[in-house]
Amino acid sequence: MSTAFAEKCRKVVCIGRNYFDHVLELNNARPSQPFFFLKPPSSMLLPGKGPILAPTGVNLHYEVELALIMGKKMRDFEYKNKTPAQALAEAIDHIAGYTVAIDMTARNVQDDIKKKGLPWTTAKGFDTFLPISTFIPKEKVPNPADVTLFLSVNGKTPPNQKDSTNLMMFPIPELLSAVSSVMTIEPGDIVLTGTPKGVGSVVPGDHIDAGLEVDGVTLPESKISVD
Amino acid sequence: MSTAFAEKCRKVVCIGRNYFDHVLELNNARPSQPFFFLKPPSSMLLPGKGPILAPTGVNLHYEVELALIMGKKMRDFEYKNKTPAQALAEAIDHIAGYTVAIDMTARNVQDDIKKKGLPWTTAKGFDTFLPISTFIPKEKVPNPADVTLFLSVNGKTPPNQKDSTNLMMFPIPELLSAVSSVMTIEPGDIVLTGTPKGVGSVVPGDHIDAGLEVDGVTLPESKISVD
Ligand SMILES: [Mg+2]
Ligand SMILES: [Mg+2]
Ligand SMILES: [Mg+2]
Repeated sequence: MSTAFAEKCRKVVCIGRNYFDHVLELNNARPSQPFFFLKPPSSMLLPGKGPILAPTGVNLHYEVELALIMGKKMRDFEYKNKTPAQALAEAIDHIAGYTVAIDMTARNVQDDIKKKGLPWTTAKGFDTFLPISTFIPKEKVPNPADVTLFLSVNGKTPPNQKDSTNLMMFPIPELLSAVSSVMTIEPGDIVLTGTPKGVGSVVPGDHIDAGLEVDGVTLPESKISVD
Repeated sequence: MSTAFAEKCRKVVCIGRNYFDHVLELNNARPSQPFFFLKPPSSMLLPGKGPILAPTGVNLHYEVELALIMGKKMRDFEYKNKTPAQALAEAIDHIAGYTVAIDMTARNVQDDIKKKGLPWTTAKGFDTFLPISTFIPKEKVPNPADVTLFLSVNGKTPPNQKDSTNLMMFPIPELLSAVSSVMTIEPGDIVLTGTPKGVGSVVPGDHIDAGLEVDGVTLPESKISVD
């Protein structure tokens, strides 16, 4: 099971606030269009390379997300004059595969940064703040718009996060359109598509399990198990 | 004159508000410690590849900056227990070379984003928003803490921006310490060190000349000439 994609990646684009119940749980404003930020490739944490490092004084939050590993260049991707099914098929044609990613967030740092109007980079960019699974081949995910993400802390059942990607407010083609209207998406770039409800804190010593279910079955390639 | 460094770069880290007169001209708060954001590698504009693209409705600002092309990995770089000269020498030991960079900024987008507490990514990350010069060999810049940056719009004299890097509020070792306390700096990463006063707007058709003077002489490798 390969992680070679991580070494090739030059840009990790992360969508914010794409699941309505997650917007509510953090008392955030509902976005009228997709917005995004960058995590540095140096924040990626490969399978087996944990633990996640909690910087001193940081309230460390998990956010499980479906991440797209892009296979073809995209610039000004258009979805508006297409049926949703056509737009999704064209988006998928530009995707090489998937990975499950945990967008670790220094929530107290982010809250402070937001108040001051400063960049989110520090809150999102620490080393180890992007645990990822191995490469999930494209054919294992016939419909990325309806698969189930889950994340469980210390074996909790039901999991802390468990929702279908069909709850995205902005579907994948609209996300790729928004990103590629600003910056060219290059092969190897990774796009995180937002987190469903259920985010929360972890402390050193906690264990996180996360992954992706297709038709109720967890894909082995999608599993993350990290302290 | 080489631009191969641009293809190898996986992370562009940009320091904000590092020259006091620039903080004043934008009515910003003076930072108590260095802060930074990311530009995507896809925003780089190589010499001769212009023009800079102005997105519709955007107030496009230039910011000329000295950029460090990193040569060695850095993590938790320490400067506090060293003399300034020692700290600078150790920082330089981790630098492979330099480039002059223009941190193009959608100023109205940035103002709006700051008010809303949203990430700066869109304001900073459009394609072509990072014009760079060719590679400046390290030995051409004996003291990066005292060289002169300049930028002129449509041939204006004196230039719109012209100041020495000795005006940085946080010197290079402190910048690298701040960045590397959050994220590992990897060989090939580029660090923009902030812009001096004199930033302003350009519109399509304007011409920008920028570069770096050492002891009053412009380095040929440092020149940017872009529409
Ligand atoms: Mg940012
Ligand atoms: Mg997220
Ligand atoms: Mg700048």
